[in-house]
Amino acid sequence: MTHTVSPLAPAAFAALPAIPGLRIATAEAGIKYKNRTDLLMMVFDRPASVAGVFTRSKCPSAPVDLCRTNLAGGTARALVVNSGNANAFTGKRGRESTRATAEAAAKAACCEPSEVFLASTGVIGEPLDAGRFAHLLSGLAGSAEEDRWRAAAEAIMTTDTYPKVATATAAIDGVDVTINGIAKGAGMIAPDMATMLSFLATDAAIAAPALQAMLREAVEPSFNSVTVDSDTSTSDTLLFFATGDARDRGCPEISDAADPRLEAFRAALGALLLDLARQVARDGEGARKEIIVTVEGAASDAAAKRIALSIANSPLVKTAVAGEDANWGRVVMAVGKAGEEADRDRLAIHFGEVRVAVDGERDPDYSEQAASAVMQRAEIPIKVELGLGSGRWTVYGCDLTKEYVAINGDYRS
Amino acid sequence: MTHTVSPLAPAAFAALPAIPGLRIATAEAGIKYKNRTDLLMMVFDRPASVAGVFTRSKCPSAPVDLCRTNLAGGTARALVVNSGNANAFTGKRGRESTRATAEAAAKAACCEPSEVFLASTGVIGEPLDAGRFAHLLSGLAGSAEEDRWRAAAEAIMTTDTYPKVATATAAIDGVDVTINGIAKGAGMIAPDMATMLSFLATDAAIAAPALQAMLREAVEPSFNSVTVDSDTSTSDTLLFFATGDARDRGCPEISDAADPRLEAFRAALGALLLDLARQVARDGEGARKEIIVTVEGAASDAAAKRIALSIANSPLVKTAVAGEDANWGRVVMAVGKAGEEADRDRLAIHFGEVRVAVDGERDPDYSEQAASAVMQRAEIPIKVELGLGSGRWTVYGCDLTKEYVAINGDYRS
Repeated sequence: MTHTVSPLAPAAFAALPAIPGLRIATAEAGIKYKNRTDLLMMVFDRPASVAGVFTRSKCPSAPVDLCRTNLAGGTARALVVNSGNANAFTGKRGRESTRATAEAAAKAACCEPSEVFLASTGVIGEPLDAGRFAHLLSGLAGSAEEDRWRAAAEAIMTTDTYPKVATATAAIDGVDVTINGIAKGAGMIAPDMATMLSFLATDAAIAAPALQAMLREAVEPSFNSVTVDSDTSTSDTLLFFATGDARDRGCPEISDAADPRLEAFRAALGALLLDLARQVARDGEGARKEIIVTVEGAASDAAAKRIALSIANSPLVKTAVAGEDANWGRVVMAVGKAGEEADRDRLAIHFGEVRVAVDGERDPDYSEQAASAVMQRAEIPIKVELGLGSGRWTVYGCDLTKEYVAINGDYRS
Repeated sequence: MTHTVSPLAPAAFAALPAIPGLRIATAEAGIKYKNRTDLLMMVFDRPASVAGVFTRSKCPSAPVDLCRTNLAGGTARALVVNSGNANAFTGKRGRESTRATAEAAAKAACCEPSEVFLASTGVIGEPLDAGRFAHLLSGLAGSAEEDRWRAAAEAIMTTDTYPKVATATAAIDGVDVTINGIAKGAGMIAPDMATMLSFLATDAAIAAPALQAMLREAVEPSFNSVTVDSDTSTSDTLLFFATGDARDRGCPEISDAADPRLEAFRAALGALLLDLARQVARDGEGARKEIIVTVEGAASDAAAKRIALSIANSPLVKTAVAGEDANWGRVVMAVGKAGEEADRDRLAIHFGEVRVAVDGERDPDYSEQAASAVMQRAEIPIKVELGLGSGRWTVYGCDLTKEYVAINGDYRS
């Protein structure tokens, strides 16, 4: 299960500061992996506001069901995440496992099971034995410390080749607050929402409904615009916790997502989510290149997004990028199959700064050499101009390589 | 461009008999390929009825546009097909190329340009110079002979590793008629309709509207239920010609698709189309295994088809099959992402005759060995029972291998 680190990994990892009010612990529970951490616990010593968005799969995992239920309360005191087993398609035993885990976590964190949030990632369909790790939670809750974000990101990895971390600062009414985030990919990545687990926390004091509204808005251009292989997981979970500890430093409590004092915070949240989402795309299984598809001039933003996803998900476009081939014919194909309005004779296509096609045919000034030079980069921007309206969207994906096939051809065994 | 012949190729190729009234010729025009035929001409000495179905791409090729226009007349006298260049996304020059080709073919076959049908397959976006082959058509029309179906199938191949041919016989009112068909794949195969070129002909006497109605019906469970890589081509073309020569042997002229005398013919047509469609799937680029996905118990046939396509198109399912891994968790994922109604706790999944999951969890009697034995076969049947209604559909696809990535990573160069 060890894979070469993606060539698109960040040159350096952000150092995440503590979020006051949130403590972290990890452990080696041996659920599937050996000699690595596979269990994460976050503890909120005071009730934190919580927001979440989840997979739209019709067959969600048991932990997703539990989170959806507990989200109604709006308050979190503990988060437990395991890697190695997704606890998905595990029927009654799956529900029993989440119930047992939530009860053990509640006991450890001195709270109600309804204030516990769970996530699991890994193999689907294998029963998850909560007994393998439930007994560890009380020790973890006791030993948890504020300064362990990097360890948290490492404990939730599956086929990821690097941990995904990001941090940002924003002022609310003159008081600086922090937002930290971690995420894991790396297969079954597709909207909606992008497959993955991601956990964010801030010390800002924001009520759960406002947090939820901001998260839902920010996820559209970020995690919901990322695709690795068009396969939507049963387990996608993005949770955002607000401890509110910044109140102690004079930060106001915000209850309305439209509050103008959230302007900088909202921008920081959006940038952080996009950063994490792109880290996920750049660590797509077998990825060697990031593909950034922008569609402009569509009939609507929604149409632009559908066309951009059609391009970014096309196996033929993705293999062309892997082969460093500026094959814009396949981009045309992907535009055509998206099912949205398109006028062949108005289409223009760019690879990077090179316009390869215009007005429905090859650009007369097109230089194969210039296009080939673009394709040798690590980030491949593909821009399509439809010339129909003002709809616009950008989607982030990666190439399709032999390594993707190798990784997924023997994952379970 | 030479690839190892697919292990799923037929052990023997059907010998296609002549279709009276239809003559065939092929040539080496050197459009892209060297030392192989790349030009096909079919000539109908008397006007033939013609029906056609085409890609649903919003950016269809110039020949598709021409065929759609000419189909309104209902009569064919000539078909010209080239491989090596798709004449797609070629703007005005593409239209000029089809016009010039149709005029040259009309002259050669002594008919109107509106009675000529064209198809092109190969690279997208490169101008197709009709001058490379238009001058050959008159010689081809003169030398064409009835008994050249295998040569026809070979001339239209691109990355296909074997020619696709099929033949059937059916009685209409006691008179036997023949149906012949050829097809080519092998990438950009996805509904609707499945990417490819396919040409069928019969000596039956069936009016164009009736032929069209029968073709449209027969294409749904066959070519529109095949997928190689979910990428829909700009050029999908299926044409069906009826020369009517069987009239000379007492075969009645049929003008209504609902005519009960067509019963055997309709069945033979459906079987022949399914045969050709499966040959296309089995020669999918890099394919080593055929995947046959059947969804039962869906809310409707349409829902069953969407779920079956979601499974057959999933890169994670396809790579699992390539790795001979009975990874039914990925099947669950693909059911969940299809967007159709599904109740996790009622799902049952079979690989071949082995039930691996039932009632929302792993089948207690599940044998990993038995499932693994199924995965080692060349044909992998995957059956999903939803337990919701009576909707049912079967879709045909293939696995995703490193060879697919290799073939498509350097196709254009």
